Order: sequence, then structure tokens, then C-alpha cells
Amino acid sequence: MKRIVIVGLGFIGGSLAGACQKAFPRAEIVGVSRTAASLQKARRQGWIDKGYPNLAQAFEAKGARPLLVILCTPVDTLRDLLLQLDQVAWPGTVVTDTGSVKGFLVRWAESRTWRRIHFVGAHPMAGSHERGIDHAAPHLFDHALTFITPGRRGPQSTLRLTTNFWKKLSGRVVLVSPEEHDRFAAQVSHLPHLLAALLVVSTPPKALGFAASGFLDATRIAKGEPSLWVPIFLENRKELHPWLENFSEDFERVKRIIRKGDRERLKRILTQAQRRRVDLGKGSCGVED
Amino acid sequence: MKRIVIVGLGFIGGSLAGACQKAFPRAEIVGVSRTAASLQKARRQGWIDKGYPNLAQAFEAKGARPLLVILCTPVDTLRDLLLQLDQVAWPGTVVTDTGSVKGFLVRWAESRTWRRIHFVGAHPMAGSHERGIDHAAPHLFDHALTFITPGRRGPQSTLRLTTNFWKKLSGRVVLVSPEEHDRFAAQVSHLPHLLAALLVVSTPPKALGFAASGFLDATRIAKGEPSLWVPIFLENRKELHPWLENFSEDFERVKRIIRKGDRERLKRILTQAQRRRVDLGKGSCGVED
Repeated sequence: MKRIVIVGLGFIGGSLAGACQKAFPRAEIVGVSRTAASLQKARRQGWIDKGYPNLAQAFEAKGARPLLVILCTPVDTLRDLLLQLDQVAWPGTVVTDTGSVKGFLVRWAESRTWRRIHFVGAHPMAGSHERGIDHAAPHLFDHALTFITPGRRGPQSTLRLTTNFWKKLSGRVVLVSPEEHDRFAAQVSHLPHLLAALLVVSTPPKALGFAASGFLDATRIAKGEPSLWVPIFLENRKELHPWLENFSEDFERVKRIIRKGDRERLKRILTQAQRRRVDLGKGSCGVED
Repeated sequence: MKRIVIVGLGFIGGSLAGACQKAFPRAEIVGVSRTAASLQKARRQGWIDKGYPNLAQAFEAKGARPLLVILCTPVDTLRDLLLQLDQVAWPGTVVTDTGSVKGFLVRWAESRTWRRIHFVGAHPMAGSHERGIDHAAPHLFDHALTFITPGRRGPQSTLRLTTNFWKKLSGRVVLVSPEEHDRFAAQVSHLPHLLAALLVVSTPPKALGFAASGFLDATRIAKGEPSLWVPIFLENRKELHPWLENFSEDFERVKRIIRKGDRERLKRILTQAQRRRVDLGKGSCGVED
């Protein structure tokens, strides 16, 4: 790696810049952000070597040919950024991203002809309900799982470069289809987020004053930024919907069980939940999605 | 307080014994547990001065008249224990408890005639998904909120004694009707617990392997002990049911919003959830229910 360009210096982009600085000490790390304060903070922390307010300036600048660009902006900005990059990047530039939804982007990208860039989607399962570079943490990805979601075509060398990059940065790399990724994400990240938000909204304000740590933990993710989450829910509608239906059915079933006072069936459900959740704590990657 | 009898030396009873030992240094703290190891541990920790395997022996023993008995056993054991206590306790003994559901117990108790005891229900909002005296923590109640749920009759002095006891032990005491308590508990504790358990059970095992800290936090309470939680759900059916219905309706509504791609309404819900949850973190008692 000679030159790594990170687009977007929020919580993820800032953390990633810091992580790259450690993992690739000989590479030049370039940050792109419209926000002057974020560029300044990244420079002050020593996370980026150079910073630019937009893509055009980042690629006009002299210096080593950029081998890898990582997009770290909300999922609804990624298509536009790929189109822009295809205008300004050096031919042969590899582009990856950190977005929480993959199908819509990878399938769209492989349906087009690209002149200069090769895109390989990725999603490191690391994050926070906090946002902005002020909360960024360069070791965020150390033990994280990163999904890589290659499209149906594209050179092997491109996939290898992307995979090696994420292997160097995160704890574990898993290759899956974009649709499989979106299904997993719907199950372990998007549905839980929706339930947490609904739980907060549907609880009467007076009762909220009596919330203790159980409620607080169960709803922590509801602090997440709506401008990031709205596009996630909408872009992942297709894979999310069947799991929302599935959860509805399970919820209706348990409601009936409780109404009928079916002690045995209720106990079976709670016991299965307890066993699986205790086991999970032992093996999981334990970092935020 | 001259003599305090704590019945049940699990996580709550053990913690309460330790807390009483600190808060009432001149009182004799007596523990009652069928489990020899729990009595032993409580004695070794200096949390109890005396320990007995059953109520009869605890009350046969010589010593100061017990002024207060606290029941710290699962909610489905409390009726039986009150009946037993009424056989063996000193006349005028005040009994309180720590159970998570109040209506069924308080209304049942006030419908009967008691010969020796006066019962005043209570629920300190403190706990853990861990169980047993090995996890007990004497400062568990320090900042907790305790609900006191008096029945329609019973002498003021009894209520005063109970209230003073919980005031001394916990951060804040709130007097509400048993039904109001059960509604609050359904909202901030029982529904969240049910959702967490269902989330674990409804997620395919393969996807569970990709769970990160968002999912782990959202489902931590699902580790709770089914033998405690089944009676809670069943005894609180009446107040719980409308909130399960309410949540179903909210969930169906947000499913439609996502299916239609209604960006604005989805954003409004997530923004309201974010705002309320962030505010909540600031003011809540921050201890487990």
C-alpha cells in the first residue's frame, strides 16, 4: 500500500484513518472531508498525512498513485461517490466501503461499466451510537468481523487486495454474497435497532423515569443517528421485511402463550433464549455493529 | 430495628443482607435459606448474624422480637410464605418483599384476615441477569428506586416502618398503587425482557455468530433466569397484555412505514427515540430492574 484515501472522516472514517496509520506505517494516508474541523482533528491526531475538502482535489494532488480508496460515508451517498470517483481516480484504483447494507450497492455497481475504478464492498461490524471524529478510536476494528461481499465479476487481484487490507485491520474476514450479508445484518443489527427505537418510543414518558439498567442496555442502540439509520432500513428493505414478519409472528405467538398462561411453553422459550444468549457471550466478537 | 429476618439468600436476599448489615449496624440480621451453602456464604461474608433452614426454626429461636421480615424469593412463592409466616411470626411482625409483580399479591393479602403479620409490598428496582448469592453485592440498592405499594388498609405505622426501611437502603422511594407499579414494570422491565428473549430465539443460529455489541447489549437481559421470569410474566398478565398489544400495533405501523419507504415518518420515529433515549441516560437511576 502506497497511498490510502479515506473518504468521510466521521466516527468510522476517523477510526479507520488512525487504524491505517498504525497498520500501514509506510503508506500515505489521505483524508477527504467537507468538514474542516474533521480534517484538522485527523491531522492533529496524526491519523492522516494529507487532507482535502473533496475528491477532485484529493486526486489532482501530486503524489503516489492511490491504490485503495475506502468510502466511510452514509449508505445513501455511496452510489454518487462511486460515480464521482470514476471521473477523477487513477485508472485501476480499487474502492471498498464500510456501509451496513451491501446488496443494493454491489448489484448496482456490477450492472454498470466502470472506466477507472474497481469496487469491492465491505462491512466491518464495528461502530457506536456516538458519531463524529471526536469519538473515533483507532483500535475500533482490532477484533471486529469484516464482511467482504464481492460481486459476480471483477478481477481476483482486486478482491485479494481488498481482503488483505481488511485482514490486516480487523480480527476476522468473512466472504459472503451481498444478499447473505444483508440477511445477517437484518437479523443481528437492523431488527434489534428497530426494536430498541420502538421500545423507547412506545414507552409512556412517565414510565421512562423508572427505567433501570435492563431497559437502558436494551435500548442503548436507539441513541444511533437517524440520518445514518433511515437509509440503512430503506436500502435493506428487501432482506429486512421477511425478518420483521418473522418477528411479528413470534411475538404474536408468545402473546398468546402468556394470555393463556401456558407456563411450560413460556419456560421453554425463555430457557432457549437464556442458553443461546449465555453461549453467545462466550464466543462473539463483542464489538458493535 | 432490632432484628431483621431475610427470607431467601439468592442474589437479592444476599445483597440485601449485606446492605442491612451496613445500614443497621445494631440490628441482628437473620437469614433463612434452604440452601446450606448460601447460609454459609452469608455468614462468612458477615452479612448475617444467624442463619436458619426454615421459617419455623428462625422464629422459634430465642432473641429479640423480629420487627421486620423481608421476603426475597420468586414471586410465585410469596403467597405461601405469607401464610406460613402468619403461623409462626411474633404478633405484629411487619413483612415486606422484593417481588417484581405487586397487584396479585397485595390484593390477595388485603382480602384475607391475618393473625400475626402486616404485609406491605415493595419492589426495589435492582437486580441482575446473574443469580445466586455468589453474585450478591451489598451496594446493589444504593442508588436504586424502590416502589412501595400499600394496600387499601393496614395501619400507618406499618407503612411508615416499611418506607423508612427502604429509604435507608435505597436511593429513592416512590409510593404507588400495586396496579400502577405493575403497569410501570410491564413497560420498562417485562416487555423489554420478552423482546430480548424473542430476539435471541428468533435469530437463526448462524446469524448469531455475527452478533456484535449492539445485539449483545440489546439481549443481555435474556440471560435472566426463566424460573424467576415465568411467574413474573404470568402473575403480571393483566397489566402486561395491553402493552404487548400496544407494542404489536407500533411494530405493525413501522413495518408498513419501512415497506412503503416513508423516509420522513421513519426519520421522525428514530429521531424521537434517539432524543428520548439520550435524555434518559442523563437522569435515570441506572440500576437494573
